[in-house]
Amino acid sequence: MKKEITIVKIGGNVIDNSDLLSQILSDFTSLSGSKILIHGGGKLASELSSDLGIESQFHEGRRITSSGELKIVTMVYSGWINKSIVAELQSRGANALGLCGADGNVLQARKRSIAEVDFGHVGDIVNVNASFISKLLEQEIVPVFSAITHDGQGGLLNTNADTIACKIAQALVSEYTVKLIYCFEKQGVLFDENDSNSILPTISKPEFKSWSDNGILHSGILPKIQNCFDAKDAGVKEVHITHALNLHLLNPKTSFQ
Amino acid sequence: MKKEITIVKIGGNVIDNSDLLSQILSDFTSLSGSKILIHGGGKLASELSSDLGIESQFHEGRRITSSGELKIVTMVYSGWINKSIVAELQSRGANALGLCGADGNVLQARKRSIAEVDFGHVGDIVNVNASFISKLLEQEIVPVFSAITHDGQGGLLNTNADTIACKIAQALVSEYTVKLIYCFEKQGVLFDENDSNSILPTISKPEFKSWSDNGILHSGILPKIQNCFDAKDAGVKEVHITHALNLHLLNPKTSFQ
Repeated sequence: MKKEITIVKIGGNVIDNSDLLSQILSDFTSLSGSKILIHGGGKLASELSSDLGIESQFHEGRRITSSGELKIVTMVYSGWINKSIVAELQSRGANALGLCGADGNVLQARKRSIAEVDFGHVGDIVNVNASFISKLLEQEIVPVFSAITHDGQGGLLNTNADTIACKIAQALVSEYTVKLIYCFEKQGVLFDENDSNSILPTISKPEFKSWSDNGILHSGILPKIQNCFDAKDAGVKEVHITHALNLHLLNPKTSFQ
Repeated sequence: MKKEITIVKIGGNVIDNSDLLSQILSDFTSLSGSKILIHGGGKLASELSSDLGIESQFHEGRRITSSGELKIVTMVYSGWINKSIVAELQSRGANALGLCGADGNVLQARKRSIAEVDFGHVGDIVNVNASFISKLLEQEIVPVFSAITHDGQGGLLNTNADTIACKIAQALVSEYTVKLIYCFEKQGVLFDENDSNSILPTISKPEFKSWSDNGILHSGILPKIQNCFDAKDAGVKEVHITHALNLHLLNPKTSFQ
């Protein structure tokens, strides 16, 4: 029988709320068995850019990463946020280890080619070093990933944290029964974004196509949902989007069939 | 027979010179056998503090670390510098892994108690997790340490990189034959600081006491030399202070008897 692993991604809204983050890190530590945490960046990178007079630029919600911005996001994501989370997890008894993609060559990426938009130092993952992750897990280490990868040629790259979570989940299915949880600020995917009770308990692929085609689901939730289906298609056993505070319950939630 | 390991510490003067850093990382990668890199911080932390209007404070050459400064040094040391070095080493074929003391609980420290001076978030190492380092080395991983430790209670602490190198060297002597190299901007310890040819090829403890008592050796070199003797006393086989560009030669140098 395969070993079980829970992969949890927490977004910027969790990072920015220190009380919520503290609760989530306790709940995460209490999860039984092997686990991996992937974290986004929150507002600190934009605030630091602003303080330094660098204007953060976005295209459809995704950051355009100049050289100056790359330095900032690496400092904030892989430095302060990652190491603060690792120290907090250590204090709760989880033997956490912070990683960016360059560490142990764990996430190799390719700089996104310039099409309509030049995203700058942004990378799309081309390889996950699953055997290295497995060796860490065998030592009962809890890997904590920041959203920075590398190109194998000495360059660091900014990479979407949702996608990192999906790619790691996919890479571990051959060895583990994988549960993937995206934690964010809502209870699940809402059918009506103005009605917090309209949580979709499950979404099928035909429903996703229909609801995205007619605009019921739109904007930033679309790539998040696509990551969920990509994970399911690759053999991830359970995929959920839920509120960070539901981590210990894993319910209510939106599941993917 | 014990395995051999080379532990190299590079200081801020190397970090601040990108051509020199590139050369050193190539030379370091070429060293045979197991190896560990420990790096200091350079000017970037002070520059960033200055840009953000935070005044860096020092006492006898050692940084006083306020909460704001702790965030900055963690971002700079464990974020940008550490991950840039790791990515560069990966591109040279070394399977580097960046660590601060919280990662894998590898370096636990205690906040320095307030005596004459309150150094703020500064830590003195109380435990090195040598078995974790050994497991990484067995996987042919090259650990790269930034000068940040943790207190086991969720707090990060700024810690002197020379001392980290010394403590790691000491912790590994039971399992390894250890060589410890401090790389800096001079060819070795100078008997006359104004004469670059006055390199001391060896220093004995009585000489060190005499030359520090009469002021021939003074300031920042004193704690560096003390770390060297501490390492020797603990059973480190070779300890050298030399110019970073001598890494591939390990000569000329100042050795400790």
